[in-house]
Amino acid sequence: MKIDRLSGMLSELGCVSDEPGKLTRTFLSPAMRRANRLVGGWMKDAGLAVREDAVGNLIGRIEGSDKKAKTLLLGSHLDTVRDAGRFDGTLGVLLPIVALAELKRRGVTLPFAVEVIGFSEEEGVRFASAYIGSKGYLGLLTAADLKLRDAEGTSVRKAISEWSRGAPAAVVRRNAARAPRPQDLLGYVEVHIEQGPVLEKEKLAVGVVSAIAGQSRFKLTWTGKAGHAGTTPMPLRHDALAGAAEFTIGVEAIARRTPGLVATVGALTVTPGAANVIPGEVVHTLDVRHARDAVRRSALMQLGRLATRIARERGLQRRWQRTQENRAVACSPALTAQLGRSVEAAQGRSLSLVSGAGHDGVVLSSLTPIAMLFVRCHGGLSHHPDEYASPADCGVALRVMVDFLERMAQQHAR
Amino acid sequence: MKIDRLSGMLSELGCVSDEPGKLTRTFLSPAMRRANRLVGGWMKDAGLAVREDAVGNLIGRIEGSDKKAKTLLLGSHLDTVRDAGRFDGTLGVLLPIVALAELKRRGVTLPFAVEVIGFSEEEGVRFASAYIGSKGYLGLLTAADLKLRDAEGTSVRKAISEWSRGAPAAVVRRNAARAPRPQDLLGYVEVHIEQGPVLEKEKLAVGVVSAIAGQSRFKLTWTGKAGHAGTTPMPLRHDALAGAAEFTIGVEAIARRTPGLVATVGALTVTPGAANVIPGEVVHTLDVRHARDAVRRSALMQLGRLATRIARERGLQRRWQRTQENRAVACSPALTAQLGRSVEAAQGRSLSLVSGAGHDGVVLSSLTPIAMLFVRCHGGLSHHPDEYASPADCGVALRVMVDFLERMAQQHAR
Repeated sequence: MKIDRLSGMLSELGCVSDEPGKLTRTFLSPAMRRANRLVGGWMKDAGLAVREDAVGNLIGRIEGSDKKAKTLLLGSHLDTVRDAGRFDGTLGVLLPIVALAELKRRGVTLPFAVEVIGFSEEEGVRFASAYIGSKGYLGLLTAADLKLRDAEGTSVRKAISEWSRGAPAAVVRRNAARAPRPQDLLGYVEVHIEQGPVLEKEKLAVGVVSAIAGQSRFKLTWTGKAGHAGTTPMPLRHDALAGAAEFTIGVEAIARRTPGLVATVGALTVTPGAANVIPGEVVHTLDVRHARDAVRRSALMQLGRLATRIARERGLQRRWQRTQENRAVACSPALTAQLGRSVEAAQGRSLSLVSGAGHDGVVLSSLTPIAMLFVRCHGGLSHHPDEYASPADCGVALRVMVDFLERMAQQHAR
Repeated sequence: MKIDRLSGMLSELGCVSDEPGKLTRTFLSPAMRRANRLVGGWMKDAGLAVREDAVGNLIGRIEGSDKKAKTLLLGSHLDTVRDAGRFDGTLGVLLPIVALAELKRRGVTLPFAVEVIGFSEEEGVRFASAYIGSKGYLGLLTAADLKLRDAEGTSVRKAISEWSRGAPAAVVRRNAARAPRPQDLLGYVEVHIEQGPVLEKEKLAVGVVSAIAGQSRFKLTWTGKAGHAGTTPMPLRHDALAGAAEFTIGVEAIARRTPGLVATVGALTVTPGAANVIPGEVVHTLDVRHARDAVRRSALMQLGRLATRIARERGLQRRWQRTQENRAVACSPALTAQLGRSVEAAQGRSLSLVSGAGHDGVVLSSLTPIAMLFVRCHGGLSHHPDEYASPADCGVALRVMVDFLERMAQQHAR
């Protein structure tokens, strides 16, 4: 199959950037217009009819032989973080194009229609809010979404109307009117690099995603009493950092004994923060994720009790502030099983993973069954110029996608 | 006794500052010249002969009735930290002046001579190096000390020669020649606010100091592996903050089970420090103090083994960097016992404390036996405008000082 072709496309698209010397391609930027033109050309080469919607989503469609059949959605996002890698998002847009080109080469016509979508916004860089592309594609943008402003004060509404050269209200209305309807869809399948180390650890090129983890994020503040590090005996201390440290170890312990839970204290600041002063206040983040909301909530209850106990025992005050809350999204068991069979065919065995990060599938899941294929990436590294998925692994993913489409076609024929 | 007088002097001296609206009086500053003139006047009123040495130390001397008797040194420092309180240092200079005035009022003539010294530098603010005053008084300033430069590039040597209006070398030589000799001294007694919470906790106005703690200070660096907080399962993590947190709790545990040990992680920074990134590196301070060097060294051995174990178990690298090391200074048992008897006479019982902070007595101890009297301060607070020792507690300290001098006189007479 055309693995060299896919690698070449990834390299070429990786050079389409808003910043010289690094890859940065944000929502509705000049680089995004060039990227859509480039990828749109590849879509046409693969036999797809190409359009762009009002929020910059690039949509390539190929009709099926069965005009009454539903549509299968494939895709991912074409925007990137700042100083990004070449695989996050783009792989999931380019791989289906190459897969459809391969089917065309083999003379295979699918009974159902396929839409390959390059979503224009998933990373939340420009407007500090994620999923604008997929929400726009589904006609789900709210008035609040449209009012968001970027660093230069431009609103989503204004950016969209400039991009589409139309009056904002009409553009949004027209876009929503073209949104797909659930009854017309077979589902949505997204290929994405894992952005984690599990496949590498398991020595597997690809794996299927069982769910996208739900996520809670908090800001915690521990307040004790600053004091002289030399003159305050241990029993008279109310050390905010010692409390936060005990909590951090507890976070880790609870996550370790709860299968599938990840919990992280990622940022932490100490006040006053001097070598000879007992810490009076510590502020830190807490990020908790699990594929099942009930497990995450139960862990949060445990963490809450732990913090209360630590605060009481140490004479500290602790404040919780919830900064983010996302429910878990289950992948479709049927679609995922189908994908798993193609994975088994391609690499001998399948592995089911939970996605700890959010993806366009989160938004698509509100409309249609979703499935995701993860591709091994080197060292689990992502959002970094060194982000890397090998051509061999991308080749396995490509074989899985082709096999999956053929199996879907056979199933449809039965 | 003249407690109102002492309180008034503390207030007046608390207004002699280099910065409007707050108390800041650094080594050889204009405010220090005014402070020396003010305090020198009070010394003269109490019957002392006053001089200033080349490094700005203010020295008031009263001869004893026995011309062959040795000299007792009393004092503390007249410099302050920035935005300081009114008691740190100054109390230990003013209280002996009031005590000697009280003895004069009672018609008591001591057999031995007394020198009350207001050291010009103890806090290390101007030259980031402490004890320049007491070292200069004892003729112990080294070439390295004299080369130190302040923020404006002025050296200690230049500052001293300008202050004394003399050639630097001659000034330093002449000052060293006037330094007291060990065989001429009875000892050095310093009154100081506790700067800690123990006396308040014990409901005592004053206590005696058994030793000034030895101190080790380190910078520790833990290096793990940064990673995505959502996609990296717990068993695959090398979380630098979790390691540092486990160590911080261990520091506390070792200090809690080692009587008299204080150990503190006071400053800590996390890299990269984002809510959704597993910490890759943590740098923090470690401050360990104890009255006995052997106990401190044994604790450091335990802490070293703990860090090694944590690093090994978690797959982290850890680096120790020693930034400070001061040996413990024992107070004179004889002088301290004498002081303790005066404390018992004044408030019913005495209490022996370790000083966790350094004081002028550290330098004086190289020449002569030392003893220290600690005075309760509100909330243990120091180095802050709210620093406070009540007139009643200062009154107890004054009674102790007067009683101590009278007992010393009786002892001398026997």
